[in-house]
Amino acid sequence: MQAFENFTRDELIKRKNELTKEYENYKKQGLKLDMSRGKPCSEQLELSNDLFKYTQNLFSEDGTDCRNYGILDGITEAKRLFAELFDVKTDEIFVAGNSSLSLMYDLMAKAFNHGLNGFEKPWSKLEKIKFLCPSPGYDRHFAITQLFGVEMIVIPMKDDGPDIDMIENLVSQDETIKGMWAIPMYSNPTGITYSDEVVRRLANMKTKAPDFTIFWDNAYGLHHLYDTPDRLLNLIEECRKAGNPNRAYMFGSTSKVTFPGAGVAFMASSKENINHVKKQIAIQTIGYNKINMLLHVRFLKDAANVREHMKKHAEILRPKFEAVLEILDKRLSGKGIAKWNKPRGGYFISLNVLNGCAKRTVSLAKEAGVIFTNAGATFPYGIDPQDSNIRIAPTYPPLSELKTAIEVLAVCVELAALEKVLAE
Amino acid sequence: MQAFENFTRDELIKRKNELTKEYENYKKQGLKLDMSRGKPCSEQLELSNDLFKYTQNLFSEDGTDCRNYGILDGITEAKRLFAELFDVKTDEIFVAGNSSLSLMYDLMAKAFNHGLNGFEKPWSKLEKIKFLCPSPGYDRHFAITQLFGVEMIVIPMKDDGPDIDMIENLVSQDETIKGMWAIPMYSNPTGITYSDEVVRRLANMKTKAPDFTIFWDNAYGLHHLYDTPDRLLNLIEECRKAGNPNRAYMFGSTSKVTFPGAGVAFMASSKENINHVKKQIAIQTIGYNKINMLLHVRFLKDAANVREHMKKHAEILRPKFEAVLEILDKRLSGKGIAKWNKPRGGYFISLNVLNGCAKRTVSLAKEAGVIFTNAGATFPYGIDPQDSNIRIAPTYPPLSELKTAIEVLAVCVELAALEKVLAE
Repeated sequence: MQAFENFTRDELIKRKNELTKEYENYKKQGLKLDMSRGKPCSEQLELSNDLFKYTQNLFSEDGTDCRNYGILDGITEAKRLFAELFDVKTDEIFVAGNSSLSLMYDLMAKAFNHGLNGFEKPWSKLEKIKFLCPSPGYDRHFAITQLFGVEMIVIPMKDDGPDIDMIENLVSQDETIKGMWAIPMYSNPTGITYSDEVVRRLANMKTKAPDFTIFWDNAYGLHHLYDTPDRLLNLIEECRKAGNPNRAYMFGSTSKVTFPGAGVAFMASSKENINHVKKQIAIQTIGYNKINMLLHVRFLKDAANVREHMKKHAEILRPKFEAVLEILDKRLSGKGIAKWNKPRGGYFISLNVLNGCAKRTVSLAKEAGVIFTNAGATFPYGIDPQDSNIRIAPTYPPLSELKTAIEVLAVCVELAALEKVLAE
Repeated sequence: MQAFENFTRDELIKRKNELTKEYENYKKQGLKLDMSRGKPCSEQLELSNDLFKYTQNLFSEDGTDCRNYGILDGITEAKRLFAELFDVKTDEIFVAGNSSLSLMYDLMAKAFNHGLNGFEKPWSKLEKIKFLCPSPGYDRHFAITQLFGVEMIVIPMKDDGPDIDMIENLVSQDETIKGMWAIPMYSNPTGITYSDEVVRRLANMKTKAPDFTIFWDNAYGLHHLYDTPDRLLNLIEECRKAGNPNRAYMFGSTSKVTFPGAGVAFMASSKENINHVKKQIAIQTIGYNKINMLLHVRFLKDAANVREHMKKHAEILRPKFEAVLEILDKRLSGKGIAKWNKPRGGYFISLNVLNGCAKRTVSLAKEAGVIFTNAGATFPYGIDPQDSNIRIAPTYPPLSELKTAIEVLAVCVELAALEKVLAE
């Protein structure tokens, strides 16, 4: 559909004047709204306040005193809980500190400094390293690869995951392509979940680089908004079946289950990979916070209970997501100037405006006191080649503020589109 | 003093027969004692059980919700507490996760991958890197440098710290010497505290490498055994005064103040260094566990209260250290076959036996069911050039076990010495 295809130029000018008035009215209100933060709101945090009810004794089920040194890879009950939740075996899991991002950074650093299991050489010894970056994606992933001097290749996101034809084609030819980022479930920011076919092809594809490594950031694997959740195929298992057992590392945490920054993170991979990286981590630390692991397992209990707990999060978040979608629908649909996803989980709504209009839209909103994630931030190097993608984070603000912010955003989207179309 | 200098050969043979009987008797007891672990005992852990009394609300003093994302370098009150305890400014401190070892590993990795503040190049881009390793020292330090392929140079420990003449001489000539490990207070394992002169000379010395970096592991800075503690000069301040403000990073944690592995770690350096590394850490993580920081500050309160708290640790540990010293004194003094330190703090007693006898002594003890830290472990590459040093860790075992273990050790020290002398 063309932008404003049923409008005459005069009608567009009239519409622009109307919207400018509305925009100026918002500006006068002195709004100060921040829509950039993909973090839980206070009501969500309240759901986990009972975490500290379980401090009577601090011994794990096998008698380990969690107040003292010992155990590198997590207490037994924590490994069991994460293994159950993410459908891996307990010897395929490493339970760590408070941050899965930090585990990913650290695994990248180890790949560069020492090499991971099966590497011929650490990546720092190679001339050139490239990574595939499904985009729009998570800015912090891209910041890590950029810091290590990795060349990032944008892979467009489709409705069933990243463009798998393009990926297969690239990795089969270029030995310097050493890995790939992925947020396979309720992806940040597009909200889509990788299809079974995409997961299987990632597991099975021939890669020119024998040390091709998938960083599988399953950040939203438990974060459904509806009772009929998306399903994600288990990549670790598919890699094993495909005869590429050491290809992928999965990451996750309880940051958006209990407390962001004070939860428990883990990584999972083949037993062989985990055993190898464990030896490296043994040089880095004596161990992670076992008390926090213990309190988490006592509070979260088991996978069934976690699913119930996540439903309470969903009840808080669903109205927010639906409010955003309703406003976008009411104000922008049928005009050919914006497309957006309807995520069934995760933390974001991804909005694509007319090419060349994302920065202008975000800047107009900012002038009216509403902050969105910088346009471009969802692409490698912060550059959206189409200047089209805007990330909406509906979780943190109260519903009333969220509605106002999205009304302002919708006005700005349309204004920026009108500016573009009228200038053509 | 010569070994057994007042004994005839016959007397030595007789003594050996006596000791062999005693040793065989110990062997028959089927002892299973582990003296290798430098970790607190259960009574020490009990001292901090009130840590979880303070969970009514989880907001920091400036209103930050510690249950959510935000703040990279630690909550205000945690920075203030560590700054007060370690005599630095709050903008010279970075409060992190549960492990200071992990901060050191990570700083080393950053020095290799990206370079620290003021580096011309990351160390991974250089042909050769060497580190000075005061020895005996901490095996985990040496394991880190070894993992990164750093050549380690043994610096002998003297009564006032590492041989500073040798250090000055080496660093003034060799540009590939990029740094140095140090445990400046109640050093692991020698128990000595660096003298003011040594600290000042480390701060002032001319180094051929402009990026010479001291890893100042102040692990036992608060861990006095007596009311009149050793004093350590503040290296960060001395470096500033000397015009080398960016030379040193200090590390510490509450691992042996509250709970090992579940405490709070920090690093301190010049404001410029901290600001630089903060930007790198911002790529690695969103932040560290602020709830744990908050509970720690509420429990530990202020520097004066921490000092009182540490006296309770000392009351538990002093009898253990004194029991070891008493047995060593009673059984080994005056024979010219062993020397040991009398530490006034820290976690270890360092025992030097006759050259070439440390491995044999530890192995004899092991055969009798008493495990000590591997001989050699306190030196780079696990090789003690004199085969003389044995590390005793008196903190963890109950007093009665400790006494038995040290009696066994003393028998083994003398037996190994007799074997050597009689074979000559």
